[in-house]
Amino acid sequence: MASDGNKRVRVKLGERSYEILIGRGLIEQAATHFTVAKLGKRGIIIADTTVEPLYADKLVAALEDGGFSVKVLTIPAGELSKSLRQANRLLEKLPSLGLDRHSFVVGLGGGVAGDLAGFVAGTYLRGLPFVQVPTTLLAQVDSSVGGKTGVNLPQGKNLVGVFHQPRLVLADTGTLQTLPVRELRAGFAEAIKTGAIYDAKFFSWLEKNYRRVLRREPAELVETVRRCCEIKAAVVGADEREGGLRAILNFGHTIGHALEALADFTGLLHGEAVAIGMNCAARLSARHAGLPVVEAQRIVKLCKASGLPVVVGAGYNLPALYEAMRLDKKAVGGRLRFVLLKRLGKAVISDAITDADIEEVVHECR
Amino acid sequence: MASDGNKRVRVKLGERSYEILIGRGLIEQAATHFTVAKLGKRGIIIADTTVEPLYADKLVAALEDGGFSVKVLTIPAGELSKSLRQANRLLEKLPSLGLDRHSFVVGLGGGVAGDLAGFVAGTYLRGLPFVQVPTTLLAQVDSSVGGKTGVNLPQGKNLVGVFHQPRLVLADTGTLQTLPVRELRAGFAEAIKTGAIYDAKFFSWLEKNYRRVLRREPAELVETVRRCCEIKAAVVGADEREGGLRAILNFGHTIGHALEALADFTGLLHGEAVAIGMNCAARLSARHAGLPVVEAQRIVKLCKASGLPVVVGAGYNLPALYEAMRLDKKAVGGRLRFVLLKRLGKAVISDAITDADIEEVVHECR
Repeated sequence: MASDGNKRVRVKLGERSYEILIGRGLIEQAATHFTVAKLGKRGIIIADTTVEPLYADKLVAALEDGGFSVKVLTIPAGELSKSLRQANRLLEKLPSLGLDRHSFVVGLGGGVAGDLAGFVAGTYLRGLPFVQVPTTLLAQVDSSVGGKTGVNLPQGKNLVGVFHQPRLVLADTGTLQTLPVRELRAGFAEAIKTGAIYDAKFFSWLEKNYRRVLRREPAELVETVRRCCEIKAAVVGADEREGGLRAILNFGHTIGHALEALADFTGLLHGEAVAIGMNCAARLSARHAGLPVVEAQRIVKLCKASGLPVVVGAGYNLPALYEAMRLDKKAVGGRLRFVLLKRLGKAVISDAITDADIEEVVHECR
Repeated sequence: MASDGNKRVRVKLGERSYEILIGRGLIEQAATHFTVAKLGKRGIIIADTTVEPLYADKLVAALEDGGFSVKVLTIPAGELSKSLRQANRLLEKLPSLGLDRHSFVVGLGGGVAGDLAGFVAGTYLRGLPFVQVPTTLLAQVDSSVGGKTGVNLPQGKNLVGVFHQPRLVLADTGTLQTLPVRELRAGFAEAIKTGAIYDAKFFSWLEKNYRRVLRREPAELVETVRRCCEIKAAVVGADEREGGLRAILNFGHTIGHALEALADFTGLLHGEAVAIGMNCAARLSARHAGLPVVEAQRIVKLCKASGLPVVVGAGYNLPALYEAMRLDKKAVGGRLRFVLLKRLGKAVISDAITDADIEEVVHECR
């Protein structure tokens, strides 16, 4: 715990190391933390049309009070903004704003704003300092940590992007009070995933406390974000560019991403797709990696209790779903790599899962 | 010298180290060198409409004979292809080609193909292995080495891009036999720059041998490319991301880039703009950094003798030229940083050059 009452998680990546601060009221304290992180005096904030009216003015005021000069660029709310078209629109606005290599880019909002702002920061002038100010549970527990940035192509999620680590992450848990409940639940799916792959104790804590988290009790929100960031920081610190360990973060994501892609990024929230994907992956784990059936059931049960979907909708064209999985970045030589669990808290990577195995569990989960 | 008669320069960047091979017939030997560099079995080649008919079939045949599977994607010839629009067009084609994270992207051609292919390689699936096969003197002596990739915005050159080091560079000097003489001269401008900033002996060698180089004598072409790559490798190896030393490579480029931008990237070749920029920068160096006037004159004389322009055309709107310079990535806090010479072979960075100083030399060079 930092002396100011915020929690603090350090992501150790050599000269690219940075701090994640977690607590209520961090947006109001932004200038102090920007100064400590040695950010330049000028920057832009990228926010979507939902988050901009809620928090952009507050962040701008806090930074301007601290002597920073910032301008807000707004994008339409929704996953469709995570496109090359939006990235280009933003990049083409930047030359007139007087930015130089020391200027910063802030991604204020959920995963879409963060991933898009990170891509813009990673490519403008071949890389500007980047700050994440996540305002959704999903972004606070997952997408704002780790340096993955990117946009979608019509054929699949995150197919274009760069690794670009932030200089600072401010996870203001106060912002979660305004988050729609469906999004809160979707973010919670990534917390469930984090416990499932890395920390059985944290998984049990989530089972015990999920109601408090979903009721937005401040202490439980902070603890959920803190532990998820700590785990993700450990995984990313060991494997920044997904050569090995980092792949375990994709538990539930191979099928999840494909479901999202076919829903055209609009029908399912990312966390909802991951919950369905975890149902499939838990079954595959029980069958092919030795996960006790009772532990597989605990994952599905916690998802359901949290109000998350776990069933593959009837509307999906299964051949198209398998095709979408093959486009996944994790595929190597056309062969899918699956993250499976040996037990709760212990993930393994498998490339022994056949198309028939996948079809079987997808049918079971319909 | 390698046992196969090729010259070899190693760029030392830790785990991102790679080799530049220089010699005649390297395209025909591509499969061997791709295998040694441990590249995957599948990839794409990006070439423009000028280079594609000359060398793409040859490279494809050489790679397919060696068991590689490659597809050629063509872009229109010319600097206008170095755009976000072209990058997007290429990126959107990739998902249907069955590439995975081990697949490679080859930039075959001049700086435009190399910079654009590098940007595509650096952003697709957050980074694919990249190979440069430069076929212009400019690309062989300069743009294919160092890992800078990118595209232009309407407001300036290379404003969007990433650092993405190649895994291998094959500089087949045989390709220079088909290069239009104007482009050969433009490439030679970067060789003059390289000698001027780093190696007075090499500069003298160029003064003595420029006629042979421009007559495309094979041995002198190889030596020019080899020494330029060696120098650039030393500079980039000491400063991969342009925190310090690397900036000296921009001698002549601050004014040069602005001239290019205002000519809409079509009126002047890059090397021609750099030659004019070097004329201005040599004068600034004599006035503000102690470069002996006789050495400043040698730079201008060698440019002229090589058939390069050294005069700022009458058509330029000077206020627009100064404005374009301010957009330069090298500007910090609105202040321009200039590369000046203390003497031939010894560059320094100066931020003491005023607008009035610049206007003065630009007027002299009109």
